Amino acid sequence: MKTKSALAFAEAHRNENLDRLISFLSIPSISTSPEYQPDIERAANWLVAQMKAMGFNRARTFRTPGHPIVYGEWTKAGKDAPTLLVYGHYDVQPTDPDDEWLSPPFKPTIRGENIYARGASDDKGQLYTHLAAAEAFFGAGSQPPVNLKFLIEGEEETGSTNLGPFVEEHAEMLRCDVAAISDTEWVNPATPTIVYGVRGLAYLEIEIRGPKSDLHSGLYGGAVHNPLQVAAEMLAALHDEQGRVTIPGFYDKVRLLSDEERAELARVPFDEEELRAEVGAPALWEGEKGYTLLERTSVRPTLEIHGIGGGFTGAGSKTVIPAWATAKVSMRLVPDQKAAEIADLFTENIHRLAPPTVRVTVRRYGMADPAVIERDTPPMQAAVRALRRGFDAEPVFVRSGGTIPIVTMLNEELNVPVVMMGFGLPDDNLHAPNEKLNLDHFYRGISTVIHFMTELAGQS
Amino acid sequence: MKTKSALAFAEAHRNENLDRLISFLSIPSISTSPEYQPDIERAANWLVAQMKAMGFNRARTFRTPGHPIVYGEWTKAGKDAPTLLVYGHYDVQPTDPDDEWLSPPFKPTIRGENIYARGASDDKGQLYTHLAAAEAFFGAGSQPPVNLKFLIEGEEETGSTNLGPFVEEHAEMLRCDVAAISDTEWVNPATPTIVYGVRGLAYLEIEIRGPKSDLHSGLYGGAVHNPLQVAAEMLAALHDEQGRVTIPGFYDKVRLLSDEERAELARVPFDEEELRAEVGAPALWEGEKGYTLLERTSVRPTLEIHGIGGGFTGAGSKTVIPAWATAKVSMRLVPDQKAAEIADLFTENIHRLAPPTVRVTVRRYGMADPAVIERDTPPMQAAVRALRRGFDAEPVFVRSGGTIPIVTMLNEELNVPVVMMGFGLPDDNLHAPNEKLNLDHFYRGISTVIHFMTELAGQS
Repeated sequence: MKTKSALAFAEAHRNENLDRLISFLSIPSISTSPEYQPDIERAANWLVAQMKAMGFNRARTFRTPGHPIVYGEWTKAGKDAPTLLVYGHYDVQPTDPDDEWLSPPFKPTIRGENIYARGASDDKGQLYTHLAAAEAFFGAGSQPPVNLKFLIEGEEETGSTNLGPFVEEHAEMLRCDVAAISDTEWVNPATPTIVYGVRGLAYLEIEIRGPKSDLHSGLYGGAVHNPLQVAAEMLAALHDEQGRVTIPGFYDKVRLLSDEERAELARVPFDEEELRAEVGAPALWEGEKGYTLLERTSVRPTLEIHGIGGGFTGAGSKTVIPAWATAKVSMRLVPDQKAAEIADLFTENIHRLAPPTVRVTVRRYGMADPAVIERDTPPMQAAVRALRRGFDAEPVFVRSGGTIPIVTMLNEELNVPVVMMGFGLPDDNLHAPNEKLNLDHFYRGISTVIHFMTELAGQS
Repeated sequence: MKTKSALAFAEAHRNENLDRLISFLSIPSISTSPEYQPDIERAANWLVAQMKAMGFNRARTFRTPGHPIVYGEWTKAGKDAPTLLVYGHYDVQPTDPDDEWLSPPFKPTIRGENIYARGASDDKGQLYTHLAAAEAFFGAGSQPPVNLKFLIEGEEETGSTNLGPFVEEHAEMLRCDVAAISDTEWVNPATPTIVYGVRGLAYLEIEIRGPKSDLHSGLYGGAVHNPLQVAAEMLAALHDEQGRVTIPGFYDKVRLLSDEERAELARVPFDEEELRAEVGAPALWEGEKGYTLLERTSVRPTLEIHGIGGGFTGAGSKTVIPAWATAKVSMRLVPDQKAAEIADLFTENIHRLAPPTVRVTVRRYGMADPAVIERDTPPMQAAVRALRRGFDAEPVFVRSGGTIPIVTMLNEELNVPVVMMGFGLPDDNLHAPNEKLNLDHFYRGISTVIHFMTELAGQS
């Protein structure tokens, strides 16, 4: 009865939910660049205001050495009701290259079935479904069947640096029976997808210093080692011809898939040509030989170059041997690799590769360990039933290639079952121009979360 | 007598010459970027005004599809007097990285024995010695012993694109007996240096396009080939472990040095450790095995990477597989390599190296053929005597690693003997922050040019 009325309330208030999502998406809460600090604060305060207006008994921001963490709770469902911790993040990726956006990234725009804006899918739109679901119970004159705790950070896109210490310090406040996260995508538009694993991340930057200043390439070419050439040669040496990462020890702790897991993954409905057309590359990459594409993007570790700095990249030509070069590199990790160990192996390897003609420094950015979650638990089955009802389709379980640092903290350290029940689609353009969220998924996502809360409480 | 009075006039007007050099150096005539177009015009007009004020019978700018070419002449030395064509360029390199300049690049600043500014050595300061020498004759109440033609372009730093057609079209106007260029450096601070060869240049840009937009590296890493990885691997493949360029056919037309030339080069006073300390690299590069450092930087061809674009190089981290990568690459060429042929070989090689996962385009920027000039000619010997007098030291002959496109045009096509008599020093920071010119070299350079004009006319 409560569920039905909450569903009806959400249905009747689609426009209000869309308006509020638009106001949330309009805040350029980019976490990677200090100039957006005021917007980070605005986004955090916006969430606090929403939760207060909704009737939460507590909602506030917590200062950290970085961006504030938003926490809100409503714990009046009773002692027997389970407690659900919802995690999300209000920060977003940078928007460059800006000239490739068809509408401004922070002017949310509806085109066709989608709303376009930075953060639409990752993660503001998905996070908002949980707020809207809770509100639907209140709005319908009843109350949620579970106790609710919302933990919303502003540093997910920069490696969740301050989240770990916060979770440790506030373990009592965050105590819960289950955690839910909507920050993932479906394998295809027809198949609701529960993610039961995330890859870890080790993000590093290499700095290569050669001469003390830029030099004329005609006068010094052949005498002074070009740091960009050194960078290209070291970066090229990080993969072999089989697409494998060459860092000694890199694969040592990678857990092999069971035959059953491989068979299951092979059954996931997936069309490589569709993916190729969607990304627009002339051909997909074979990557690490001996593994299927879905294996390579979820259960195998990878290494990517994100940018190479130094020298001259402006319009026209400049004949310079640059004084320095930098390279940003990250590795996606799988169980049982540890981010700190892999960062050590990477750093040792770079120093081994570096020629005596340059000085090399390696810096660390975000670090996160990978996680895999049990699937045959009551919360996971509650999510299966909720997705079935919300979308009239049978969900699948997959491991994601992405990284959500909180998952490891909750699952491995606090022993809380984590349900990753996302509403994104594979073509949502995460971290890219023209990020979007399908509006039908947004509305059905709200219904699904209503069902999920009900299922968790065993009241269906 | 004329010579003595001209020398005395120059000596007495050091301050005026310095002031005028400062005003010339204050114009940010950067040729590589369209935003400096008005400054390019200012620099060209400044030169015209100088020549008019000095009493030249003709001085004007010529429009080209690019930056204007300045031409001025004084041809009243009589039919029997030889005609000297002075070539220089009023354009300068970009100034980045700007934060490494100790004083602003276009606010000429004297520190110690030097004047610091972009263009101080390359080429405004060196070019100005010829103007000041001519003026010294007029100022002393007489006139230069040779007919003078000044050809000063504004595109040397962008490959002299429009100079070739201009020289062809105005062959009659530019007719001369000898050409002089002061746009080169000495091998060390004690040894006046005449350059008798320049390397050619083929400057290209590779564009590598993979996916149609930037992608999330967690979700697509392992499935989509990273264009920056492709760039690193292709660029790394351009040198082998012997430091040789691997482009098939690259060395086919390289003229081998005679034993005599090698022996002569080995006698050039040169200290590798001094060079290493000057450039500040932890060690010099061995480069192409089997050749000495001076050979590698002058008589052997090289390949340099100038910049790698694409992805994210800002502060912090961004986990992106970029849609594209670019690389700016140039090759310095030696006789009998031809720039157009080498550009073809490079392009073919890049397409051969490109994997099917990306689309690759190669664009051409500046192209210039190499040149070597006869040394036992009267104008070269006139330069030897002039340098001896100007600097009280014995000059040496070397081939430069740099590129001056006009040299090939004059020497190979118009059959004019070219004398490259530079006043720069090896630590002038050409194309780099804190470019400078030694002031003693500036004043002695003026005297040397006065001697040179006299020697050419056979009036010493």
